[in-house]
Amino acid sequence: MLSTKAATALTQEAAAIGRLHLRDLLGDAARSRALVHELGDLRVDLSRHKVRAETIELLLALAAETGLAGKMEAMFAGDLVNRSEGRAVVHMAQRAAPRIEGDGYAALAAFADDVRDSDICDVINIGIGGSDLGPAMVSAALASHGDGPRIHYVSNVDPAHLHDVLAGCAPDSTLFIVTSKTFTTAETMRNAALARDWAGGRGPGMVAVTAAPQVARDWGVDSSRVFDFDEGVGGRYSLWSVVGLPVMIGIGADRFARMLNGAAAMDSHFQAAPFAENLPVLMGLMRVWNRNFLGHAAHGIMPYDQRLRLLPAWAQQLEMESNGKSVSAEGAPLGHATTPVIWGTAGTGCQHSFFQALHQGTDIVPLDILLPLRPTGLHLDGDWAASHAVLAANALAQAEALAVGSPNDAEPHRHFAGDRPSSVISWEASTPYAIGRLLALYEHVTIVSGFLWGVNSFDQWGVELGKVMARRVEAVLAGTATPDGFSATASDLLDRIAAPADRKG
Amino acid sequence: MLSTKAATALTQEAAAIGRLHLRDLLGDAARSRALVHELGDLRVDLSRHKVRAETIELLLALAAETGLAGKMEAMFAGDLVNRSEGRAVVHMAQRAAPRIEGDGYAALAAFADDVRDSDICDVINIGIGGSDLGPAMVSAALASHGDGPRIHYVSNVDPAHLHDVLAGCAPDSTLFIVTSKTFTTAETMRNAALARDWAGGRGPGMVAVTAAPQVARDWGVDSSRVFDFDEGVGGRYSLWSVVGLPVMIGIGADRFARMLNGAAAMDSHFQAAPFAENLPVLMGLMRVWNRNFLGHAAHGIMPYDQRLRLLPAWAQQLEMESNGKSVSAEGAPLGHATTPVIWGTAGTGCQHSFFQALHQGTDIVPLDILLPLRPTGLHLDGDWAASHAVLAANALAQAEALAVGSPNDAEPHRHFAGDRPSSVISWEASTPYAIGRLLALYEHVTIVSGFLWGVNSFDQWGVELGKVMARRVEAVLAGTATPDGFSATASDLLDRIAAPADRKG
Repeated sequence: MLSTKAATALTQEAAAIGRLHLRDLLGDAARSRALVHELGDLRVDLSRHKVRAETIELLLALAAETGLAGKMEAMFAGDLVNRSEGRAVVHMAQRAAPRIEGDGYAALAAFADDVRDSDICDVINIGIGGSDLGPAMVSAALASHGDGPRIHYVSNVDPAHLHDVLAGCAPDSTLFIVTSKTFTTAETMRNAALARDWAGGRGPGMVAVTAAPQVARDWGVDSSRVFDFDEGVGGRYSLWSVVGLPVMIGIGADRFARMLNGAAAMDSHFQAAPFAENLPVLMGLMRVWNRNFLGHAAHGIMPYDQRLRLLPAWAQQLEMESNGKSVSAEGAPLGHATTPVIWGTAGTGCQHSFFQALHQGTDIVPLDILLPLRPTGLHLDGDWAASHAVLAANALAQAEALAVGSPNDAEPHRHFAGDRPSSVISWEASTPYAIGRLLALYEHVTIVSGFLWGVNSFDQWGVELGKVMARRVEAVLAGTATPDGFSATASDLLDRIAAPADRKG
Repeated sequence: MLSTKAATALTQEAAAIGRLHLRDLLGDAARSRALVHELGDLRVDLSRHKVRAETIELLLALAAETGLAGKMEAMFAGDLVNRSEGRAVVHMAQRAAPRIEGDGYAALAAFADDVRDSDICDVINIGIGGSDLGPAMVSAALASHGDGPRIHYVSNVDPAHLHDVLAGCAPDSTLFIVTSKTFTTAETMRNAALARDWAGGRGPGMVAVTAAPQVARDWGVDSSRVFDFDEGVGGRYSLWSVVGLPVMIGIGADRFARMLNGAAAMDSHFQAAPFAENLPVLMGLMRVWNRNFLGHAAHGIMPYDQRLRLLPAWAQQLEMESNGKSVSAEGAPLGHATTPVIWGTAGTGCQHSFFQALHQGTDIVPLDILLPLRPTGLHLDGDWAASHAVLAANALAQAEALAVGSPNDAEPHRHFAGDRPSSVISWEASTPYAIGRLLALYEHVTIVSGFLWGVNSFDQWGVELGKVMARRVEAVLAGTATPDGFSATASDLLDRIAAPADRKG
């Protein structure tokens, strides 16, 4: 990527723009308004990035030189762009009209309806990674639309996770959804077995969501309760598939379909809009600009919406698992940085925590500041709207303060240098449609930046070594292997685990 | 800091050690075991950092040249080391024996007991930043020791936060604790007013925790229910004070005191232990080594303990708010980087999310891997212990895999370069004592690295500009000011907030 002509020009552009302050760039209203892009009520404001018209031109040239359009076409055409696994990218088909109108979806919706109409009080999804983060995040995001049973998510092999959830449930009224692509995921199958023991054959029992239906049936799930999905659906892109079942049980099939509609609208936009107006393309280019030309190693995602508090953790998997690679899709070493660290928490809490470092620290961290303009789902009496206006004021105030800073004060500790970039992403209200559209935006931003970086955004070989190592450690703990090959201090810790000391603090 | 002789030598050391792989360093058992340090059952294993004996010597020389011992002495002696606010550092006094044996503590414990013995079902703490993150984290960490009413935490001015908690509570049996040092914090007072309206004079009402008792009384809290603390206690260091009241109500005063005892034990160790064996000093030196000499811009904290899931968010405030500064304690511009981005989530979930990037991404992120060796508080029937062994195996396996990597494979996407550092921090079990000791460790690591960086770790002027800006935006939204001085796109967004469009996605 960095060997392109555009990259050379962008390196010069970065040096040139380094001499301009965002305060001055924002003074040009025409420039700033040209950096706002919309899709329906979704508004992406890129005016607080260190860019001007020439920068965008050069970034679009970079996209052209690195073949972004061709890569997108190949993906949409169903080519096997996930080369290391020989797979096409199929998650967008999960939210396309033909699927929502098909028999499989109707069967899923009917099952969800049955659960919603039953005496089931609690639904516990047992899954980890992509089988957890996406659905858990959406269940929280759309909590005010939830009118079904309580939905819980258990992922960790730490037994405290399942234990503490079960402590609040009763076997007679608790349904378990075991979600695992292979139905062999260590954490998930261990928790599923503990859950089955706890239920002891009472109550509504177990449902399986998997790409390995025979394995689920062999494990003991009734055929009528095995919902399978295409093996080509990657975990972190899977919430649109049957992996979304717990969400659907919580909010109902109609609202779930509206979420899919919102995502599909973003898909159409991504496929059809000219790059100069294409939200995922422009945001993906900003990721690359900030990372590779301005040198920012981290990127923050701050939702000013308490119910979107799990979005940063979901986006963290999405972007870092997709683009946390050091070799190209063809297997060649890369000469440039790939994903930044993606992190964040909900606003306004973040302002009273680490925003000190974002305003006055030595490093610059570009932010996505997310804001629904209206509140949703506040049915109790009270003047809730006034607080929402304060929320909105804070989101905008932070973006302005980070960019503009303060004049030089007499006291250095009160000085704000400003010149710190952010995107402000807003929409009318956090409806299922708006949330679906927002999540698809993040998926496509990830794909665009991955294409620019030249990586395969759809595999995740980097999780394998840890699994192999964990099995070896487990064998040592079980006494079926010796700690050969582990470091001395690892071996010492294994001894301590195996033979508890009498130490007391 | 970088102008010291030790820093020059450390720069050379970083280049020299860059030629050694952690795989090789770990092969030297004597070196590795010398990098393990203990306090009671707390074990801090630094052997997987890119250091050798010479490195530690040089880092201790850096501490000497930058006057760490003198700064610590001044802090312990009660000097006004928080210069910009003219304050001493007093939070350690909150967990010292004289306080726990004093009348104030007895009165607080008596109140907590009364609540625990009453018909109150729900306690809602309303506070933000340091009045939220610490107590919320401890309530989750010690959930299995909780035998009082349910404890909730509401921080965000987003009305959905309070609303969704109230939706599960009843006014007759809900107590509110309003926690704010000044009793003027915008988010907190707004939520407190909404809560008071909701309660409508019914039920157990409001308690105030504040350093401004008169303001709380003027707001309407009965004198007998105002618990005040010293203004010198900084928010992010305050959970040991009366700010811990919701924790105490949840677990009882005896367990709370044991948590204070654990923290006090760490204080004694920090003050008395030689630097070469001093856990906070050594961990603080690792922060500086990784940040300023090896150039790592982010630091991850991964607790392998689901109940410690909020610890990263607490540590994020602690370290980033304390040390996210660009000027020295004396107000001079710094010539070196300060706090990295601090972030993380609980293991094993993290392994199925962003660990791909930690293993195979282009950037190296040093980690703290935290592990209690035994499970606690699993009272339901079931074979929980076996899962905990798998949890422990995974924590250790990740540390080894990150450090050692894999041999060169034929396929580049399956290759793990290794050489990625981590600390493994373990203890017997997550008791109140162990948690108090662990949290004090993090506090002191922050103080040590802050002293090395030369910043004032006890002020937070960087949050002020955002507050001023927010009030200005609120005035525009209220129609009492014009948007002069805001950028064009900010002004456009304000128009949209003020006059909802008919846009539908």
